[in-house]
Amino acid sequence: MASRTDLANAIRALAMDAVQKANSGHPGMPMGMAEIALALWGEGPYRHNPQNPHWANRDRFILSNGHGSMLQYALLHLTGYDVSIDDLKAFRQLHSKTAGHPEYGYAPGIETTTGPLGQGITNAVGFALAEKLLAREFNQPGLDIVDHHTWCFLGDGCLMEGISHEAAALAGTWGLGKLIAFWDDNGISIDGHVEGWFTDDTPGRFEAYGWHVVRPIDGHNPDAVLKAIEEAKAVTDKPSLICCKTIIGKGSPNKADSHDSHGSPLGEAEIAATRAAIGWNHGPFEIPADVYAGWDKKAAGAAWEAEWNELFAKYEAAHPQLAAEFKRRNAHELPGNWNEIVAAAVAETNAKAETIATRKASQNALNAFVPSLPEMLGGSADLTGSVFTNWKGSTPLKREGNALVGNHISYGVREFGMAAIMNGIQLHGGWRPYGATFLMFSEYARNALRMAALMKIPTLFVFTHDSIGLGEDGPTHQAVEQTATLRLIPNMNVWRPADTVESLVAWAHAIEQKETPSTLIFSRQNLQFQARSDEQIANIRKGGYVLRDAANPQVVLIGTGSELDVAVKAAAVLGEQGIAARVVSMPSTNVFDKQDKAYQASVLPAGVPRIAIEAGVTDGWRKYVGLEGDVVGLDRFGESAPAGELFKLFGFTVDNLVAKAKALVK
Amino acid sequence: MASRTDLANAIRALAMDAVQKANSGHPGMPMGMAEIALALWGEGPYRHNPQNPHWANRDRFILSNGHGSMLQYALLHLTGYDVSIDDLKAFRQLHSKTAGHPEYGYAPGIETTTGPLGQGITNAVGFALAEKLLAREFNQPGLDIVDHHTWCFLGDGCLMEGISHEAAALAGTWGLGKLIAFWDDNGISIDGHVEGWFTDDTPGRFEAYGWHVVRPIDGHNPDAVLKAIEEAKAVTDKPSLICCKTIIGKGSPNKADSHDSHGSPLGEAEIAATRAAIGWNHGPFEIPADVYAGWDKKAAGAAWEAEWNELFAKYEAAHPQLAAEFKRRNAHELPGNWNEIVAAAVAETNAKAETIATRKASQNALNAFVPSLPEMLGGSADLTGSVFTNWKGSTPLKREGNALVGNHISYGVREFGMAAIMNGIQLHGGWRPYGATFLMFSEYARNALRMAALMKIPTLFVFTHDSIGLGEDGPTHQAVEQTATLRLIPNMNVWRPADTVESLVAWAHAIEQKETPSTLIFSRQNLQFQARSDEQIANIRKGGYVLRDAANPQVVLIGTGSELDVAVKAAAVLGEQGIAARVVSMPSTNVFDKQDKAYQASVLPAGVPRIAIEAGVTDGWRKYVGLEGDVVGLDRFGESAPAGELFKLFGFTVDNLVAKAKALVK
Repeated sequence: MASRTDLANAIRALAMDAVQKANSGHPGMPMGMAEIALALWGEGPYRHNPQNPHWANRDRFILSNGHGSMLQYALLHLTGYDVSIDDLKAFRQLHSKTAGHPEYGYAPGIETTTGPLGQGITNAVGFALAEKLLAREFNQPGLDIVDHHTWCFLGDGCLMEGISHEAAALAGTWGLGKLIAFWDDNGISIDGHVEGWFTDDTPGRFEAYGWHVVRPIDGHNPDAVLKAIEEAKAVTDKPSLICCKTIIGKGSPNKADSHDSHGSPLGEAEIAATRAAIGWNHGPFEIPADVYAGWDKKAAGAAWEAEWNELFAKYEAAHPQLAAEFKRRNAHELPGNWNEIVAAAVAETNAKAETIATRKASQNALNAFVPSLPEMLGGSADLTGSVFTNWKGSTPLKREGNALVGNHISYGVREFGMAAIMNGIQLHGGWRPYGATFLMFSEYARNALRMAALMKIPTLFVFTHDSIGLGEDGPTHQAVEQTATLRLIPNMNVWRPADTVESLVAWAHAIEQKETPSTLIFSRQNLQFQARSDEQIANIRKGGYVLRDAANPQVVLIGTGSELDVAVKAAAVLGEQGIAARVVSMPSTNVFDKQDKAYQASVLPAGVPRIAIEAGVTDGWRKYVGLEGDVVGLDRFGESAPAGELFKLFGFTVDNLVAKAKALVK
Repeated sequence: MASRTDLANAIRALAMDAVQKANSGHPGMPMGMAEIALALWGEGPYRHNPQNPHWANRDRFILSNGHGSMLQYALLHLTGYDVSIDDLKAFRQLHSKTAGHPEYGYAPGIETTTGPLGQGITNAVGFALAEKLLAREFNQPGLDIVDHHTWCFLGDGCLMEGISHEAAALAGTWGLGKLIAFWDDNGISIDGHVEGWFTDDTPGRFEAYGWHVVRPIDGHNPDAVLKAIEEAKAVTDKPSLICCKTIIGKGSPNKADSHDSHGSPLGEAEIAATRAAIGWNHGPFEIPADVYAGWDKKAAGAAWEAEWNELFAKYEAAHPQLAAEFKRRNAHELPGNWNEIVAAAVAETNAKAETIATRKASQNALNAFVPSLPEMLGGSADLTGSVFTNWKGSTPLKREGNALVGNHISYGVREFGMAAIMNGIQLHGGWRPYGATFLMFSEYARNALRMAALMKIPTLFVFTHDSIGLGEDGPTHQAVEQTATLRLIPNMNVWRPADTVESLVAWAHAIEQKETPSTLIFSRQNLQFQARSDEQIANIRKGGYVLRDAANPQVVLIGTGSELDVAVKAAAVLGEQGIAARVVSMPSTNVFDKQDKAYQASVLPAGVPRIAIEAGVTDGWRKYVGLEGDVVGLDRFGESAPAGELFKLFGFTVDNLVAKAKALVK
């Protein structure tokens, strides 16, 4: 039987050899956390099934210090996941499962993509919240079908990042007792020993958030780690942080305890010296059978899942409807009557023909859809009364004893935390999280939006108080370039609807996505309702469509959101002046760009000059209007003043659009 | 003589009346912090001169909870700044000094623009660091010409934001004893009483950062506040947080202690009731003479500055060169021989003709310039050995006792904190801060870059490891859309240089800016040196220029950064095939767009088809290539693999560019 030393050293060897072969990567962290990994994955309570990484009630493991990806790949390989030794040899190579950082969807067992520091632990908070709320909804007496832990490894870098504050504060507030994090306290970051820039009393800090903190233990002593895990599990009303003193690159005679082992291969000579020092007498990528046997979790995993399957069978017998709903939610399937729900809501909204703020139209959409979609889990970053993410069935989430009551998440003023927690909730399964702040503060959250797009998960990001329509709060809050920049994130659908019907359809489209997140942008101010035919309503889903037409149009006016009505009115004026103008509504350029060329050409016919109008920066519109067309936009910051004055000041008027459109007509 | 009650109530009245007149704004905070403001501004040690808001040694005051702007405007008005009662009546109106949030450059006495929560306190950390380092450099025995405090008001929202963690941790690490912050602990944020989402033990948290914390005092008792201020001032080796229990909207009979007073006018009836309740028997915007007299700081301010002027005269007599340098630095003037320094560095760099990574070229630029620019204050977010922000004279900043030694700031893994601290340093005066991280993590810092652009301050943001050239770290770290999005920030100069000479000129241009921040983007990998004529070198400053030409060009190839050399080589191949191709290098689209039309047309002649090549998203290039041209770019996320393979995979090859260029030539 392999010794603990051998089991831990297998990780060290795989990490240093794979990084060496790739000539790139981070050996120090896996070598420093090998015994912690052994305690949790090898001997401890981490419950998972390598042969079914999708088992609904598996524990979740998140490597927040994602640069140490070889630790996770080694664990996946050793415990029996479909990650072969050849996959490890292909570390960081094109089209391999073993990307430089753990990438969701690449290797089995990767619960979330990590690397951008601080977001992994924040995702983990989302996972743990998702578990707690799903358990509340589905568990029945004696039938706890949702009952798992969320484990997270994190390093100094994660703890320095601001988002760790937002995540930890919420985890403490919510009392997420099944979240257990291990701090790799090695005292080293890239610039060296951290004393010059990282002097927090981290245990004190986390206690201030209401966490249970296990004070520094020897992270190289598996028994100490196991004892800490048991202590952490016993505290069920607080998340736990286990502070593990470790040596980065442990085992390397000359590079341990130095940032030299952090982010570069150790080098052949040092690897040989390390092999000798740790007594690992096997070639690169050679793992003895007894070490494989010591790590193998295929049998244990199958047994854990079988035990749960038995429980679920009982549950299904006793509560067939709940069981079916649980399966539907975990499969991310919409209810069978979804299309009818949408059609009815669209018809009703269209018939009402209301001129209201689209943030209000968004709330109406929630009221129409969420009663049929209990997986929708809303929230806001302390702006509920402004962003209208609550619906008629909403009550604020809050703690009562060790329970959480309510269904609308008060994230507090924590935009980045909100967005990354939503990603964690989405990844957990069973939920469709959505959350909102002002559009400007998409900037605080931006990289989490990108991570959703990169991971191909359909998180729902809602932003209100678009552009200068926000008015008096001024340029710090007037998002004039944010919409344009959000459209540039690959695999992101940005919507800027112009009225109630477009808002509703945008929500429906966003909810239906399986692999693409959506950004829904709504106005503070009232926007004019636009009449549409059934065909036009259907075409909203195509991102852009002809809203008003004229025979043989001489110019095409493209509008979005609050400026669409200016285009509609300008077209009428142009018509009175004998100029045939078509109006194209373009609520989502991203979605329009995915349509076939024939449809695109039917909306924007070749040879007809085009002018776009949008209260934001103009560059992005050149791909539609070309060099010969024009854009009425705003390539400067706004001003603090009533919105109506600002729209005039900056030229978002019918007169201005008419004049500029006429200049294009030959 | 006006009573303390009257003095504090003057703030309440002005705040509620101005918000009411504007029909928009935030009365609750000014009404809740009136006594704290009275203690600090009216009776306490806040040293400033209303008649000279630019006095170099003034104390700095930062309103991090900037939505309470009427507090600051009221204080500026009452103490004697050039902010009239008519200015207060114009609160939140177009072109008034009194914008919705405090805007730097609008009203005198506004040290920084605030509103986006958490950034004010982070700017304040920058101000306090700037003071401490400037004092270290200029003060002489008995002649402490730099010796002032930085005061900051902040609220629950600031404390929830992640950036507050980054700022507070660094302030504690650096021991910024002259930074004193007042927490407006009113227990209310926009969603209501904060218990459901903000349960931090804030005093414990700040003690964990190494702050001196004055435990909760009654924020409505000026004596308690004054006592706390004295206690905080006495602790010179730690920043201080004074926790002030307050009642939001205090004085309003029906809206105090409720979020109803936070962000909306109280309403005429409630204002009348408040007047009665607090005993304020004056009409809107009427301030009795004795209240003005009680607040007036014109005489005191003039005396404080006169005292310092006398000190400075002594300093100037004893240390004329230092005094001259102090004046130069505070005036943000470059040394008289700056142009010669640049010319010599350009000539030397051009002669060396090195093919190196532009991050290395950036370091060479620093080595060329910084010895002559002691105001350059560099740093990195824990990536110094990768981003090369250190130069030959750099030593890491660290604490020794109560002093700071070193000149290169180790910000730790705190990108947003770094950027907002840099803004504070820049705003303080005397310094030109620059700092770096990987380009991807510009996203974590993004809103601070925007704030620099909005404030018209020339902060220097450096980002390396551009695009897929980063290679194996994979798509989480490969910035494919960031350059394009940064170019969309109004008043931001983004540079993506192609070699050593362009890198150097970009640095020089950025350093010379007075009202525009710059974003300098550098490669991880080596980039081919390009030969240039003197005229071409001079034209780099124009953002775009002809690098290689052919008689009667049939196609223009536009390249930037790592792709410029592909364009150069493709032009050669095209030439061999009989197609005349021009190569335009476009290191800064923002700067090119500011050139006159004639120059732009000379670079991009009308009627000649254009194709751009850049390893990033393509939309932004349509404004140059139009609908008829083409772009070789990357509208998807990258992959984890060696960089060379990725450039081939995604078509950044001479063959591909040649083929696409030929397709454009009729």
